[in-house]
This record gives sequence, structure tokens and C-alpha cells, in this order.
Amino acid sequence: MSSPLLYVGLDVGGTTMKAAVVDDHGKAFPSSTLPTEAFKGQEHGLNQMCATIRKAIAAAGKSEKDIAAIGVATPGTMDIPNGIILDPPNLKPWQNVPVRKHVHEVFGIPTAFQNDANAAAFGEYWVGAGREAKSMVMFTLGTGIGGGVIINDFVLEGQHSHGAEVGHMKIDLGKNRRCGCGRWGCLEAFASAKSVVKRAEEAVARVTGPSILRDLLKATDEELPAKVVFQAADQGDEVAKKLVLDTAYYLAVGATNMMHLIDPDMIVYAGGMTAAGEPFLNQIKGYINELAFPVPAEKTIVRYAKLGNDAGMIGAAACARQLVMKLASGTP
Amino acid sequence: MSSPLLYVGLDVGGTTMKAAVVDDHGKAFPSSTLPTEAFKGQEHGLNQMCATIRKAIAAAGKSEKDIAAIGVATPGTMDIPNGIILDPPNLKPWQNVPVRKHVHEVFGIPTAFQNDANAAAFGEYWVGAGREAKSMVMFTLGTGIGGGVIINDFVLEGQHSHGAEVGHMKIDLGKNRRCGCGRWGCLEAFASAKSVVKRAEEAVARVTGPSILRDLLKATDEELPAKVVFQAADQGDEVAKKLVLDTAYYLAVGATNMMHLIDPDMIVYAGGMTAAGEPFLNQIKGYINELAFPVPAEKTIVRYAKLGNDAGMIGAAACARQLVMKLASGTP
Repeated sequence: MSSPLLYVGLDVGGTTMKAAVVDDHGKAFPSSTLPTEAFKGQEHGLNQMCATIRKAIAAAGKSEKDIAAIGVATPGTMDIPNGIILDPPNLKPWQNVPVRKHVHEVFGIPTAFQNDANAAAFGEYWVGAGREAKSMVMFTLGTGIGGGVIINDFVLEGQHSHGAEVGHMKIDLGKNRRCGCGRWGCLEAFASAKSVVKRAEEAVARVTGPSILRDLLKATDEELPAKVVFQAADQGDEVAKKLVLDTAYYLAVGATNMMHLIDPDMIVYAGGMTAAGEPFLNQIKGYINELAFPVPAEKTIVRYAKLGNDAGMIGAAACARQLVMKLASGTP
Repeated sequence: MSSPLLYVGLDVGGTTMKAAVVDDHGKAFPSSTLPTEAFKGQEHGLNQMCATIRKAIAAAGKSEKDIAAIGVATPGTMDIPNGIILDPPNLKPWQNVPVRKHVHEVFGIPTAFQNDANAAAFGEYWVGAGREAKSMVMFTLGTGIGGGVIINDFVLEGQHSHGAEVGHMKIDLGKNRRCGCGRWGCLEAFASAKSVVKRAEEAVARVTGPSILRDLLKATDEELPAKVVFQAADQGDEVAKKLVLDTAYYLAVGATNMMHLIDPDMIVYAGGMTAAGEPFLNQIKGYINELAFPVPAEKTIVRYAKLGNDAGMIGAAACARQLVMKLASGTP
């Protein structure tokens, strides 16, 4: 294997899927996208996956024989070892889709399969924020809170493909916050973009008199206007400032728990909410210093992700690369 | 290596240290103990360790040349990769004790070093409750709550020797329960033996009229009478029953969080509180079924540990065995 290896990473989302050829150093060629159109059924979805992969290979100016392996990342629920999407809420009406088998049969090369959140974490670990980390926990702050845990190049999938569901660690015993998953007290129920907006709406309802936050919330046409809360805080709105600070606190609780359970050398935040920038990250760090044991509080690096929306695609390629290395070393 | 390998496992506790020769199948020869006498200083402590190891070798009718490797487990705080006890609260006034280096130099054979809670989990994983598990999380329910996480033969030490501090995951945002570590809302602050007794004392103070629990608490001369609470519950005391049920609930929250973060195929409980037997375990399982995602709730085995007080010693031997295998395979 003297010539540098190339992989294709494919990240399948609820709306679109995106693929690129990625080289052995994690550098991605221009990416290609196609609509997922889950409603057209899983047969169509599998065809779209293969079409996106082919498009990406063409966009890189390569041919199929140049590709050493393919990695596919999809949302859950799934059976990772068997390469199957089970019953994904974001890809209705797909059920029990043998993704890995199909892609492998079509292209005839080693094909890896991974959860999209795990893949995104692995991408950041490989060539993004976690490049110098040996172990890393990533929180992806979006509508919900996803995550991934990587320890010494090992992606913590869990024994039943339920590992690293960091949004669903219970951080409160009370029945104050119900999570999208139906349970009470999950981290996601306190600190996701959806929760920030919900808490903001509750807070402005309690404010009598003028409120920058209320005005901004009314004026926006964003579907999930979490960023408006951060804007209002920047403009000095005290209620919004408290909401932001509380969100930083909840995220610090989640980070601290992972520092006491996994003890990684890096915690990484990804997703839309990281647009809040360094001041928000510093608030999170401040609370971690209060909450965590002194040694991990001092030594664990806490930072934002670097690969943006490419993390899942690059991470899928990282899974393909790892598969090739495993096959080469004869590891089962 | 045609003859079966033998190891010595040494478990150093605050009061005594215990060692035994353990064979390649995890079977322990008769164990030997010596007092730790930490107050006599770390020089003395290191000598006691070596003396206990020699005593164990003699008790097995073996000689030093029969032993392939030694494993030493100690309480923290520690630097596991460097084999050093740093500033252990239970071994005052020891500080920065180079345990592995000393034992290695005295016996001249490979010497492994591990946190005692991690070692106990590894022992159960090797030949105890976790024998058939690929990954396992153990909660040790004593005065505090310790733990260990094993994933595919890998002991999750953490990057700063702070992994698997399962007692110090924060499960509540309120300031109702302060932990021995000084923080609020740790699992240990709700579900350790110490917390059970504290909650029992608070509860009987609120009871007007007769109370089986109060009578039993008064009559006992146990230093930490958590078992009295379980006895009172068995005798029908409603307050005690509620305390036991609450404890099961808190432990189920801890287990569920580990199922959503690590997703092991087994959760194991060890330590004094497991004397409460199967009914208590069934209460924990019942709450896990309510709290966890359906797949891990259904598939994760939840049971009690099997090795009792020998787990740390056998686990230390398991670390020695793993070290020998690593050296043989050339893994760094």
C-alpha cells in the first residue's frame, strides 16, 4: 500500500445526505449532496446513498477503483455491528434497512457503518478539535443533544448501539423538565436549543414591562430561535443573560459527569449553539471548575468543534479508514 | 509458556492489605493479610506490601520464581500509568508513593498497578459476576460509592486516573444532598450506606409515635447501621420501606445513566448493601425498566457481584495477567 489511500465518507441526514472522498490525512475533496427523501421509501434511500457516493467520487476526479473503503453514518435507532438502521424517527418510514450490506454489495469494497453522532465525534477526534486528544467526549448541541465518546481510537458504540447518548443522562431528580424522549430530567431537557427556547418563553411570560428578549422572540422568524436568546443577552437583557448562564451551568454538569465517568483529555462542543462563541464557552468552563474534581477540572481541555457540518462525513471516512487498518492487521 | 502461569494479586486497604497467588484461570490460593499501619509511614507500608506478597507465595506453597507477575491495587488518589499513590485520604500520611517501582525492584518481575475499585471490577469481570460480559459497569456500595468500568478487557482508568468515579456523577441539580466530596447532588450523596443512614435519621426524627426503625437504630451498635434500615423494612416499617425504595430508585438512576453513556452488557452491584438480597435488586431493576431506553432496559443484565472481598485482590492479579499478555504480544 504505497499510494495514499482514499475513502468515501457519507453522512445521511433527515433532509439531505452528503459525501466526499477523504484522503488518508483527513483532507476532504469537494462534497456532493442529494436529498434523502425518506418518504419515498428505503429502496430509494439506498439508491440515493449509492448515487451520492458516486457523485462524490466524480467530484474528486477519481474513479471507484481508487477508493479503498466507504464509511456510512446515519441517524438512529440502529444496530451498528450488523450495519442496520432499525426504526429511525428522522427517516420515516424506513425500517430495518441493511445499509452496510447494500453499499458493500454495490461497490464491492470494505464498508463501515456508524451512528452519525459517533461519526461526527470520530471526525473531530481524527482531524478536528480532538486531533491531539487520546480520548474525547463530544456534545452536539442542536434541537436535541447528541454525543460521541472516543477512547484511544475506539468509538464507544455501546453493547446495544446505545453508547454516548449524552443528552439522556439524568441530571435532575425533580419533575421540572420533561425531555423529548419522554423522560424527566435529561440533560437535553435543560440545555438543548429547544429547551433554551422553552425556558425563554416561560421567562418572558413572567416579565412585566418591556423586554428585549420578548421583542426579539416576537420579531424572529427562526423556527427554533435559540440564537435570539444569546443575542438578547448580548444586548444586556438580564433575563436572557440568566438563561444563557443557566444553560452554561447545565452543560457544565453534563461535562463534569463525563469527566468523572470517562475522564477524557478533551471535552468538545459542536452544533448550532456554539455560534454563541468564546464568552459562552468560558461560562461553561467556569462552572466546570466549580463542579469537577480539581485534577480533571485543571487538565481537561474544553473547546468547540472545528469541522462544522463536515464532521459526520469526515468521521464516516475515519470509520472506513479504521476498518481498512483492522482488516490489514487481521483484527476481527 | 507451557506451564500454567501464576500471579500475585495484592489489595491494599486503609486497615489491612491482602494478597494471594492466583492462577491463570482466576483461582486464588489461600490469602494472606497484614495490617497496613499507614500511620507508620510509607516506607513501612511498602515493606508491608512486599511482606504480604511473600506471605501469600509461601501460603500457596510456591516460591518467587514460580510467579510470572504481580498486581497491586490501592485506594486513590493516584497516578495509575506511573504506578504512584499521590495523596490517599485513607492512607494518611502517605504521599507520592512509587508503589509499582518499589515492588518491581524488590521482586524483579512485571508489576501492574491499579485503583482498587477498578481492580475489583476487573476481578468480577474476569471470573466473577461479569465472567460472560464483554463490557461491565460495577457500583460498589459501601460508606461511599465506588466503581469500575470494563469495556472489552479494557479497564477505563481515565486520562487523569479519574475514570469510573460513578459515585460522583451528579444526579440532582438541587442543594438537598451534599456529598462527602463536598459537592451537591452526587449519586453517593443519595445512595451510599452513609446516605441511607442519614436519610433514616432524618426520617425517624419526623415520625411521631412508635417506630420500628427508630427502635432498631437506637438498639444497634453498628457504626454505619444501613442494614438496620433494610431490617426495619423487612419488619414492615413503612418509613424504612420508603427509604429502601428511594435508595433503589437513586441506584437505578445511576445505572440508567451508565446504560445511556457506556451501554455495557452488564451492571454489577458490590459492597455491603448487597446483603439486602434479591428483593432490593428487583426494586432497582424495576426502576431501571421505567427509566432507561427500552433496548438497554431489556438487554442489560443487572446483578450482584460474586467475589466478595476478594474481588480487588483477584482483580489485581488480573491486571498482572493482562500485563504479561501485553508484554508477550509486544503491545506498548
